[in-house]
Amino acid sequence: MTTTSDTPATVRPLRLGMVGGGPGAFIGAVHRIAARLDGAFELVAGAFSSDHGRCLERAAEWNVEPERAYASWQDLLRAESERPADERVQVVVVVTPNHLHHEIAIAALEAGFDVACDKPLTTSSALADEIARAVERTGRRFLVTHNYTGYPLVREARALIARGDLGELRRVDVEYVQGWLAEDLAAQGQKQAAWRADPALAGPGGALGDIGTHAFNLAEFVCGARVERLFGRRHSFVAGRAVDDDAEALLELTGGVRGTLRCSQVCVGRENGLVLSVFGTRGGLTWRQEHPNDLELHRPEGGLTVKRTANADLSPLAAASARTPPGHPQGFLEAFANLYRDLATAIRAEAPLPDHLPSVTDGVRGVRFVEAVIESDARGWVEL
Amino acid sequence: MTTTSDTPATVRPLRLGMVGGGPGAFIGAVHRIAARLDGAFELVAGAFSSDHGRCLERAAEWNVEPERAYASWQDLLRAESERPADERVQVVVVVTPNHLHHEIAIAALEAGFDVACDKPLTTSSALADEIARAVERTGRRFLVTHNYTGYPLVREARALIARGDLGELRRVDVEYVQGWLAEDLAAQGQKQAAWRADPALAGPGGALGDIGTHAFNLAEFVCGARVERLFGRRHSFVAGRAVDDDAEALLELTGGVRGTLRCSQVCVGRENGLVLSVFGTRGGLTWRQEHPNDLELHRPEGGLTVKRTANADLSPLAAASARTPPGHPQGFLEAFANLYRDLATAIRAEAPLPDHLPSVTDGVRGVRFVEAVIESDARGWVEL
Amino acid sequence: MTTTSDTPATVRPLRLGMVGGGPGAFIGAVHRIAARLDGAFELVAGAFSSDHGRCLERAAEWNVEPERAYASWQDLLRAESERPADERVQVVVVVTPNHLHHEIAIAALEAGFDVACDKPLTTSSALADEIARAVERTGRRFLVTHNYTGYPLVREARALIARGDLGELRRVDVEYVQGWLAEDLAAQGQKQAAWRADPALAGPGGALGDIGTHAFNLAEFVCGARVERLFGRRHSFVAGRAVDDDAEALLELTGGVRGTLRCSQVCVGRENGLVLSVFGTRGGLTWRQEHPNDLELHRPEGGLTVKRTANADLSPLAAASARTPPGHPQGFLEAFANLYRDLATAIRAEAPLPDHLPSVTDGVRGVRFVEAVIESDARGWVEL
Amino acid sequence: MTTTSDTPATVRPLRLGMVGGGPGAFIGAVHRIAARLDGAFELVAGAFSSDHGRCLERAAEWNVEPERAYASWQDLLRAESERPADERVQVVVVVTPNHLHHEIAIAALEAGFDVACDKPLTTSSALADEIARAVERTGRRFLVTHNYTGYPLVREARALIARGDLGELRRVDVEYVQGWLAEDLAAQGQKQAAWRADPALAGPGGALGDIGTHAFNLAEFVCGARVERLFGRRHSFVAGRAVDDDAEALLELTGGVRGTLRCSQVCVGRENGLVLSVFGTRGGLTWRQEHPNDLELHRPEGGLTVKRTANADLSPLAAASARTPPGHPQGFLEAFANLYRDLATAIRAEAPLPDHLPSVTDGVRGVRFVEAVIESDARGWVEL
Repeated sequence: MTTTSDTPATVRPLRLGMVGGGPGAFIGAVHRIAARLDGAFELVAGAFSSDHGRCLERAAEWNVEPERAYASWQDLLRAESERPADERVQVVVVVTPNHLHHEIAIAALEAGFDVACDKPLTTSSALADEIARAVERTGRRFLVTHNYTGYPLVREARALIARGDLGELRRVDVEYVQGWLAEDLAAQGQKQAAWRADPALAGPGGALGDIGTHAFNLAEFVCGARVERLFGRRHSFVAGRAVDDDAEALLELTGGVRGTLRCSQVCVGRENGLVLSVFGTRGGLTWRQEHPNDLELHRPEGGLTVKRTANADLSPLAAASARTPPGHPQGFLEAFANLYRDLATAIRAEAPLPDHLPSVTDGVRGVRFVEAVIESDARGWVEL
Repeated sequence: MTTTSDTPATVRPLRLGMVGGGPGAFIGAVHRIAARLDGAFELVAGAFSSDHGRCLERAAEWNVEPERAYASWQDLLRAESERPADERVQVVVVVTPNHLHHEIAIAALEAGFDVACDKPLTTSSALADEIARAVERTGRRFLVTHNYTGYPLVREARALIARGDLGELRRVDVEYVQGWLAEDLAAQGQKQAAWRADPALAGPGGALGDIGTHAFNLAEFVCGARVERLFGRRHSFVAGRAVDDDAEALLELTGGVRGTLRCSQVCVGRENGLVLSVFGTRGGLTWRQEHPNDLELHRPEGGLTVKRTANADLSPLAAASARTPPGHPQGFLEAFANLYRDLATAIRAEAPLPDHLPSVTDGVRGVRFVEAVIESDARGWVEL
Repeated sequence: MTTTSDTPATVRPLRLGMVGGGPGAFIGAVHRIAARLDGAFELVAGAFSSDHGRCLERAAEWNVEPERAYASWQDLLRAESERPADERVQVVVVVTPNHLHHEIAIAALEAGFDVACDKPLTTSSALADEIARAVERTGRRFLVTHNYTGYPLVREARALIARGDLGELRRVDVEYVQGWLAEDLAAQGQKQAAWRADPALAGPGGALGDIGTHAFNLAEFVCGARVERLFGRRHSFVAGRAVDDDAEALLELTGGVRGTLRCSQVCVGRENGLVLSVFGTRGGLTWRQEHPNDLELHRPEGGLTVKRTANADLSPLAAASARTPPGHPQGFLEAFANLYRDLATAIRAEAPLPDHLPSVTDGVRGVRFVEAVIESDARGWVEL
Repeated sequence: MTTTSDTPATVRPLRLGMVGGGPGAFIGAVHRIAARLDGAFELVAGAFSSDHGRCLERAAEWNVEPERAYASWQDLLRAESERPADERVQVVVVVTPNHLHHEIAIAALEAGFDVACDKPLTTSSALADEIARAVERTGRRFLVTHNYTGYPLVREARALIARGDLGELRRVDVEYVQGWLAEDLAAQGQKQAAWRADPALAGPGGALGDIGTHAFNLAEFVCGARVERLFGRRHSFVAGRAVDDDAEALLELTGGVRGTLRCSQVCVGRENGLVLSVFGTRGGLTWRQEHPNDLELHRPEGGLTVKRTANADLSPLAAASARTPPGHPQGFLEAFANLYRDLATAIRAEAPLPDHLPSVTDGVRGVRFVEAVIESDARGWVEL
């Protein structure tokens, strides 16, 4: 068979290189599935582990050519930079423990790559600011994977509020509770738990950094408002744990909005309980991550309205964020994939990161949030 | 037909007199239904309104003899005291606006009546202490109608925790959100809203007194622990409202338990959203007032267990608190009625108020809680 | 104190006499609570048990004078008839096993009493027709306690459909599943189970009569349509059980509506799972008895709307059927009490039973339904 | 950099060719995402449309080389057969309208390809049997994409029952309700609706074939039992529609299990309401597709247990079917992907289709089910 000159041009996946994500890691595998889900990206290179054998093992499992399974992230950046433009990695994904984000991200930006970086952005706001400056300096796209913003109904919540459906906002309350660190898993050698409990690797926040930053980002994202002041408290319930496993804050946001944030990793039996509620003068909403396809709307006329992707009046971004018809549940991976799909769209359009994707600015704010709670725990209300 | 000497003695209802509860009032009607529900009490007298015509109107509607529809609470106490012991009111129910509780309650106690008093107990802790001393001095029973403690599964939650099912407690979080005061109903002449918004009648707390005290009591009741310190904040979102309509507090309870409390009456569209969650070293629980027949248990072994009155291992008090078989929903009125039924049992047994009924001590603590949040809002952490 | 000539007339409770409801019975106690809940009725007489000692025991417990605790229902009818009009029982409640309903109900009607009778009305449609004729002949009010029709949101569902909100109806599906008869409780001596499993006492239907009739009535009540034909099947899963414990039917209703009905008492672990869904050309609804304060509405424009008593556009009857504000859960007993309250209103107004109360006609239809399923199980589609 | 002889062998994706799935089709895109999700398959060839221009358009969009975007499925089979073994398509996915499945599937099998075919398998049981014989004759793997069997908790339900947790089964009830065909979309030119409403393309079943076969398969899959007899009824509510849009059946399964099946596509506002419940002598379960991560267990000891992938005692297959930690919702696409992942595992292991994957036998049964309901609607109980 032949193809004519009218044959449409094949859309090739963009090329991704990953730093971190070796065997045993959870989030690297999630990034891979999310990035590949629509065919927008292909994972073509990786420095998956500081142990080259393990890196090669991962590469083999993930269909990455062994010569692009690098012994170090430095190798990855250097070797990929030297490849022809149409082969070279276009986006570097950073999914290492937090303390490595800063150096890798800046190096990747300076080597001319776009970057997708896991949260928290880094371990101090001084380092975070350096990353932000590198983004500005290089003009590269920088995505921080606050993946919960990718759910269709989270995007709908943001759109609803932006267009004033809830009136003037008054309250925002967000909680994020998990139970998997209720005992001292780090002492038992659980790898995911271990690095998160080591301030040298994770940064000063435990639950604060790992899930508090997601909760904080979700509140700001949906409300379109910034936390200006907070009164925070943190605690370690598990004896000997060097970072917090539980924290709360009273919040003040732009425009007189008040709120609370709670995060805990010692709520035995709770899985991934991220819940946001927002109330304004004309209505309210509640979104629950564990049932992400329902957006509860509270109205002065009474009762409860549950908005779903089936709703005829869905905002365009929320509608475009759904891959399956209503009632065909969309989950965590697809929400995550929405970030990558929208990043790919921006890259193909040679456009900057769109407003609805979490940026380095959000990453910087997350790090400031962790520091602010810690500072506030010692001395009272803190400006953010 | 005749009855023999073996005929069992008829159980007559105990006799109740009500102060407050006139036409238009909500809570008086609830008390009447709750007290009468099992036939444990009959309402035989009332000073339902300071307007005697309205008092008589209510009496007629409620089958109270006109001569026991008194022009004032003073008349009620005096005239009832003079009746023969087997006719006289046994319990005086106080359901007036808060500022009147103190004088009426003490006078009723001193006149020899048991008292059931709505919450908040009174408008200051100095007055609350005086009531507590009157209770001690007179030796009468004194019930504060924190009615949410009457739900079978709230009592089960308390029993579970008391016997150590959750291990050592770590966190308790309670929220109570309503939306009915999201606009300025008081200015629009709504009676229920009006007196609650007037500090001279309601006391210094708005949402704090009206619903915050319930949330506070529920947390202490279920945990069997006391709030020792709090950091609170309050606010009025509705312009010109003289009391708070929204408040939060960070809590420290006995034994290192940490927690949060939120209450708001401006969450548009929310009805009566009282939710409690408690976590310990071995498990957690969540109870939601709007679905009161489910008690969610969180366990380290995973999944979710919903306990109901059907459970074979239900604690005796919870089992005795159910009037209908499992799956036949028990509601607000029956939970309320459980307080009255248990009070009647104590009276018949000539026993003191049982531990599981909210007492004057709980009432005093509620008033202190309101004051503590207000004080803390001004100056930081406060001991309770 | 004195009362003036303007004193409003005291509203005395109407007087109730109960046949059945002795110690150990469940439903008699429910009727008593329901009838007394608002003070609309007082229970003043009873033939609670064929054992007079047990009858007196119940009377004492329930504050019924011993001389009105009759040795037999015949005594009750005779003695009460002879009392002065302003003392005499006004409504006779029949809560005996089913096989006694017919004789007692007709005798009560003919003695001039209004009657409230439990379901199923009786044990055959021939007997049911006799009761219906007695109702017609005597002109008395006759209430069949299909209590699920008393829930505010069931009444709202009926109103919604009557005014055309769902368009032309297409489907109605109702299921009622319980698990309490999954084992042979009757053989173990459980009294509630024993008489229900004896066709001589319960009639030909087991689950069909006990809960199937409720499901059938609910479907007809809400839809305002009649089942015209059915194809049924029944079964006993428990060996040796003389009546069905499980049954289903395909339904055809007036106007081309199609549906299904399922009932079972062997669904281990299920409590009282009565669920109704109705769909028409313009929308649908679902109501679940175990969460009775939510009415789910399905609309072409998508999402889900949960209607509650808070809704501003609630129909008048549904609104009047609520005793507590939104979010203060209303349960089984209050729904039951709504039947009695509305019956009292009719009696006071000297009006006939209102349309929305289940009547003898509904009772007759319930009995026909049981017979139709049994007949259909043997020979195919049956007209009703 | 170099790789040593110890470098693990790269796991290449298996190669997929798709017939059908052109622009505008829904299910082809789902298959592509599902097959690619883990990297187990790559889509390398397609006959996406009978219009070659549209086929090329799809190929370009999906990164399929234009020379492998074939003008016809015959071309695809022929050209791919001629490719070297290590390039050639390994699995042919058939996602055309139903009437084409038979010819394509048999041709693909006979050309030596494994086949994944959408449901219903084909348009008559005679044709279905021919496919089954071709599978047997060729020894190829044949997957029918009853994708709901891929959910972790559906697999868990099957495992629970297989090991006897529910005792001897008694009842299985399955319903599948949608609303998208409540109006005559086909007449309005909606493509998905149009072919489904044409018996020449869809086969004799409308809702029966499209969703009834899923419901039927789910019941048999989870119960590990076969429907032996049924009494069915079907209907078209939308005037002029040539196939059913609504149907029910009473079921008898192996071992005396009784049940019901309902399916409808005219339940306005319902999305994808597939719900299964199963009860046995020792317990029951309910699974709801729209909240697929919860498996409700009903136990004689009361209450409700919700099993999730967090449960420590999860069966191995269910555990292996989860890609994300508990509380990170898994959705429709991932369940679908589980079928493809397990198919890939079988292919790599050179093993036959595992028992838990829906096979041609299930496909044949689905077609028989459609025919049986139609036949039963005309003449009563039918053996299956």
